[in-house]
Amino acid sequence: MSERSRKVVIVGGVAGGMSAATRLRRLDEHAEIVVFERSWYVSFANCGLPYHVGGVIEDRQALLLQTPESLGRRFGIDVRVGHEVVSIDRAAKLVSVRNLNTDRVTTESYDTLILSPGASPFVPDLPGKERALTLRNIADVDEMVAAVARKPHTAVVIGGGFIGVELAENLQLRGIDVTILELSDQILPPLDPEMAAYVAQELVEHGIDVVTGTEATVIGEHTVTLATGEEIPADLVVMSIGVRPDSHLAKDAGLEVNSRGGIVVDEFQRTSDPAIFAVGDAAEKRDALTGDAAMVPLAQTANRHGRLVADVIVGRPTSSKPVLGTAIVGVFGLMAASVGWNEKRLRAAGRRYRAIHAHPGSHAGYYPGSETLHLKLLVDADTDEILGAQAIGKDGADKRIDVIATAMRGGLKGADLADLELAYAPQFGSAKDPINMLGFIDDNVVNGQSELIQWHEVEAAHKAGLPLVDVRTPGEFRRGHIPGSINLPVDELRDRLDEVPAGDLIITCQVGLRGHVAERILRQAGHHVKNLTGGYATWSTATRPVARPAWSETPAEEEAAR
Amino acid sequence: MSERSRKVVIVGGVAGGMSAATRLRRLDEHAEIVVFERSWYVSFANCGLPYHVGGVIEDRQALLLQTPESLGRRFGIDVRVGHEVVSIDRAAKLVSVRNLNTDRVTTESYDTLILSPGASPFVPDLPGKERALTLRNIADVDEMVAAVARKPHTAVVIGGGFIGVELAENLQLRGIDVTILELSDQILPPLDPEMAAYVAQELVEHGIDVVTGTEATVIGEHTVTLATGEEIPADLVVMSIGVRPDSHLAKDAGLEVNSRGGIVVDEFQRTSDPAIFAVGDAAEKRDALTGDAAMVPLAQTANRHGRLVADVIVGRPTSSKPVLGTAIVGVFGLMAASVGWNEKRLRAAGRRYRAIHAHPGSHAGYYPGSETLHLKLLVDADTDEILGAQAIGKDGADKRIDVIATAMRGGLKGADLADLELAYAPQFGSAKDPINMLGFIDDNVVNGQSELIQWHEVEAAHKAGLPLVDVRTPGEFRRGHIPGSINLPVDELRDRLDEVPAGDLIITCQVGLRGHVAERILRQAGHHVKNLTGGYATWSTATRPVARPAWSETPAEEEAAR
Repeated sequence: MSERSRKVVIVGGVAGGMSAATRLRRLDEHAEIVVFERSWYVSFANCGLPYHVGGVIEDRQALLLQTPESLGRRFGIDVRVGHEVVSIDRAAKLVSVRNLNTDRVTTESYDTLILSPGASPFVPDLPGKERALTLRNIADVDEMVAAVARKPHTAVVIGGGFIGVELAENLQLRGIDVTILELSDQILPPLDPEMAAYVAQELVEHGIDVVTGTEATVIGEHTVTLATGEEIPADLVVMSIGVRPDSHLAKDAGLEVNSRGGIVVDEFQRTSDPAIFAVGDAAEKRDALTGDAAMVPLAQTANRHGRLVADVIVGRPTSSKPVLGTAIVGVFGLMAASVGWNEKRLRAAGRRYRAIHAHPGSHAGYYPGSETLHLKLLVDADTDEILGAQAIGKDGADKRIDVIATAMRGGLKGADLADLELAYAPQFGSAKDPINMLGFIDDNVVNGQSELIQWHEVEAAHKAGLPLVDVRTPGEFRRGHIPGSINLPVDELRDRLDEVPAGDLIITCQVGLRGHVAERILRQAGHHVKNLTGGYATWSTATRPVARPAWSETPAEEEAAR
Repeated sequence: MSERSRKVVIVGGVAGGMSAATRLRRLDEHAEIVVFERSWYVSFANCGLPYHVGGVIEDRQALLLQTPESLGRRFGIDVRVGHEVVSIDRAAKLVSVRNLNTDRVTTESYDTLILSPGASPFVPDLPGKERALTLRNIADVDEMVAAVARKPHTAVVIGGGFIGVELAENLQLRGIDVTILELSDQILPPLDPEMAAYVAQELVEHGIDVVTGTEATVIGEHTVTLATGEEIPADLVVMSIGVRPDSHLAKDAGLEVNSRGGIVVDEFQRTSDPAIFAVGDAAEKRDALTGDAAMVPLAQTANRHGRLVADVIVGRPTSSKPVLGTAIVGVFGLMAASVGWNEKRLRAAGRRYRAIHAHPGSHAGYYPGSETLHLKLLVDADTDEILGAQAIGKDGADKRIDVIATAMRGGLKGADLADLELAYAPQFGSAKDPINMLGFIDDNVVNGQSELIQWHEVEAAHKAGLPLVDVRTPGEFRRGHIPGSINLPVDELRDRLDEVPAGDLIITCQVGLRGHVAERILRQAGHHVKNLTGGYATWSTATRPVARPAWSETPAEEEAAR
């Protein structure tokens, strides 16, 4: 016999743990690999669970990507479901494992231990919380499907994050009247409010009620009571306000854990004990912009880090990359995607940034079926480093965020987006792709040809005395405009320069393009001009309340009534 | 009056010329800008023309993005359609211009001249060539629409490039029986043959005949005669075999022109005369991989370079980027996209490269509607620099090529694709995105854990004595396999190691994934193994003839008949 083969024990048999296990087998045919999974399923499709609730993924079996048997056959991995690791003896390199069928606890030795315990839905201590369902694993989805089968009429989804929004859509697909309840002022926290508003509007227009800025205080038998005193009917209550790392095992074993409960790891995913690694939602990540610790519970990162740990164990020179946190959610055919930091976070961190809004078509306007994309790019105001981006749209939002995520990884600057050569045919993009447009706008600012003002800065600047000139057509202006603005259509501007208020100005148009043309005319006529980025489209979305059957056209109506 | 403003004359009012004109106006309110366009239209949607022929873009007006009047109003540009610049007097800085309405020739002075004359369809000197239509401008599309209205029954499209394929689809949409005739052995020259085969198959399955490897010799009254002697019915003949730079004006003026007729320019798009710039299809480009001169007739590049010339004229520090030539074509809902160099070109140049094939789903398989993507990545065998990529699929092919184009611009290596964080929800991708999969495969080769063999190397290697082991299931094997291969399913491999032929081996499976697992098992058992990249899927596509109603399953049928 050769020297004893390494024995690797893995706690948790889903994304990170199973990626580590299968990669390790490919790298080391002789390792002994044991995976303990406390649930009855491994390698299931977490991200598919909401869609099984809604029946989009009809077949429950489709969620079960692998079985202990299939993993045993293909990879020679000893997978034990229904086995919960309850403690770690680091000195002896032993874990204690409870067989959940027999309740018997045995020990298992390891040379290397990989912790991939995941995270658990956070459930606040509300009266009635026992009635709230959560969705994290196959047992949860079975319970929720059973609850839906009892034909509830109403549901409240507490928490308007990505999974909350997915669940709301899927519960509605089952014929349930759904309300999303979100403590903060907007749904989808990775987005900025003026971007999340498009999604909220889509939800409302599809009959889902979106209640923001208040919280549940009591879960009653068929209601949820809000802090406002209001009662919302809720035959079903789903709690989806975020997850907490399932790190008690690590903590009990004396491993270093951060203030948010994340298991502290180095760039090799190694915990404070060199024989123990951690990956997935329970492990700390490093933020790509700052290198600071971050918690990013995403499947792709879990998979990637699981794979990496296997490499580290066999001695391959590698290390984990800091995370951008690229994410996407789809709801009623609308996509909302983001990468990197948002504006809220940049402002909170006091970082000097520049935000660029654009509303281009998903493909050439002359080809049928183009849909408006709402894009936001965030760059460092001094270095032009790309800090983040957001995209909302029915078509191509995923593509544009993927391109920007790739540009960020490649160290491209904001202005470099102008030169990206993206695949263009009229069904798929534009000769000047939306991404190029962002680059052009940014490049103009970098080179001092343009200066932008943000939707949230306009009111104060106007009050401080800056005139607002709206360069759209009179018809567009009548249908809605920023209060206090005067109308001077761009195509008449050269002939009406004497009507332009003297000195500094704010220019706006519908999306920012004509505003830029006007800006260039007026700058060369001696005005100091700021162009409202994203134009009236961004401003009106950001400043109008969402929870109505359709966008109110109040300003235009008032105008017409005069 | 201030000093005299600059006068810029532009020859050609479509993509490059008009981008230069409008950008220049934004940068210089006082410049005198004159655009001469010999056709009757400016800023029309070139890339939309085939779709107007097919009626996909119903409204002819939709193709006309701007008019001389709209450009005059918005940008103060003097646009003169129906005016052909017939000569340049460089010494006097004058152009002679023929008014095509009056046939009168006048002269116009310039400080700076921008040439954006475009390219013309190449029509070889065939008997009957007068009957062949081409498609390049609005007059062409009007003629073709009129020809289609005369209800031809049959059409031959000579040339199977991107536009030829688009035209074939659109003519068929009008109820015409279409044959594509292509001189080389494959359609879509930017793709490699095994990738183009998917598109040819799609065309054939939609009833378009694809004839490759022969040429037209005579265009008859209702036929096209081939070099083979065969006659193909052709009420309509369309010539789409490529374009030639329209550079006679530049050549006549003594400007430097390359061997392919491209106007030679520096990185500022300046010709051999410092007062004259050139952009668009008539101007030489620089190749992104080698820096060598290249002709890349793409709208996005024309637009980008037009914009750049305006910057150069006003003295902004900038320079044009070498081109990757990212391109895409859609046909019957299938996309075919490419970026950078293909394998044919790399082989011809004697470059050491590595090709990686993969056939992942466009999104997570457990979510309905996933479509197979066919991906090919080409990297430098020594440096892992990304050299090119190709993607075919009904969903997400554009996205993956855009990501790789961006990675190339950012200088990422092939193995870096493993770490890209792309937006994942099950409708839009996979936790391990197809792009990540390419990165994993490449990373495995870079790190010596895997060695690949190409579909076109298998036969010779097998003949030279290398056994072929197919690790799919017996059922898959029965339905078709590479001649001479033996079947040892991956899940039984560990127990049947004694059946594996001794020494070096070629492994194959369906797409390469199971082959890699088998490769790892066998390498660790002492075999030197090469895994067929893309597996049987790539091999069978590459080696089967295309022009049949559906993929023939001959090998399996033979097997079954025994």
